[in-house]
Amino acid sequence: MEKTSVSKATFGRLPEYLRMLREISPETVPYISATTIAKKLNLGEVQVRKDLASVSGAGKPKLGYETVELIEKIEQCLGCDKLTPAVLIGAGKLGRALLHFSEFEKYGVKIIAAFDQNEETINFGGKTEILPMARFDQFCKDKQIRLGIITVGEGSAQEVCNQMVKAGITAIWNFAPCRLNVPSGVVLQNENLALSLAHLNSQL
Amino acid sequence: MEKTSVSKATFGRLPEYLRMLREISPETVPYISATTIAKKLNLGEVQVRKDLASVSGAGKPKLGYETVELIEKIEQCLGCDKLTPAVLIGAGKLGRALLHFSEFEKYGVKIIAAFDQNEETINFGGKTEILPMARFDQFCKDKQIRLGIITVGEGSAQEVCNQMVKAGITAIWNFAPCRLNVPSGVVLQNENLALSLAHLNSQL
Repeated sequence: MEKTSVSKATFGRLPEYLRMLREISPETVPYISATTIAKKLNLGEVQVRKDLASVSGAGKPKLGYETVELIEKIEQCLGCDKLTPAVLIGAGKLGRALLHFSEFEKYGVKIIAAFDQNEETINFGGKTEILPMARFDQFCKDKQIRLGIITVGEGSAQEVCNQMVKAGITAIWNFAPCRLNVPSGVVLQNENLALSLAHLNSQL
Repeated sequence: MEKTSVSKATFGRLPEYLRMLREISPETVPYISATTIAKKLNLGEVQVRKDLASVSGAGKPKLGYETVELIEKIEQCLGCDKLTPAVLIGAGKLGRALLHFSEFEKYGVKIIAAFDQNEETINFGGKTEILPMARFDQFCKDKQIRLGIITVGEGSAQEVCNQMVKAGITAIWNFAPCRLNVPSGVVLQNENLALSLAHLNSQL
């Protein structure tokens, strides 16, 4: 997948563009303009123009975007065009819930293994096995894993994070409610669910 | 709790300010400036100034913020000063994982009941019971619930959302990967975990 500099807000709107574009027939509508897309989705035109520019450049003057190409570019950006393998450490309740999320694959990520402190491999009646941590480092190196998910508690999150970095992981999705230190070159994305809920609560 | 207009980004930094402020002794440090806080936390001074202004006004010239008052204001804003009751609909894997999250209470929200399509009450060896949907409406009205969490699938999310609105809920946290329609006056916050992961993936 190509490296992208699309903002998280733009990124969040891409699935909507994609759904709409897939519904129209590129034979009948070979080109589509930002104005048309904005109207169809009831979004601001400036926003749509900005979103599409960051994904697929400026479009053709007076014509707009080539429909087929725009679909491809959005799929590429979302990562739907190929599956990136990911691993997860911490197979507690949240970790196991994430392992059952079928949505991830629609967006180009497949959690291929989970790791925990168990000494034997655990098959929890599902798609993904839970492997012992002792196998983590070699597994990541063998499969060239770049994407890791942390669902352990606050107490062991930094240690787990260090193990990921050591194993060659360069993008980490952290669910532990604490600040983690990563070396430069590693992207860290924190997902503090409690804070999200607290923010909603503050708007009551 | 007071209504607040603090941005989500600012909100996300409040726990850090709070942790630091609780560590210093207000007797020794009765006032603290944005500059000092910025230095201690290794954050930009402009950002800290803006964050604190949105929570606790401008501070006193040359002195800064009264430490005790600033702590109180941040706690108030985060909602840690009192517990808001919330309900959850959809007691699948993700729903049950959220029911086990102890972090929510630290941030002022307690999920007091979960609802699902079961006909009898389910006690899943935990703190919160899973009640049948038939009891939802009356439960929310009796307890004056304002905060609801949707963890059902895409197919039934809008229906569940409508039931929440009808029961008097005015803030909804939606985990279903779809767009929901809510009447004006109801705050909707979408949590699309797959998109978050896809965004991280796009930065690989």
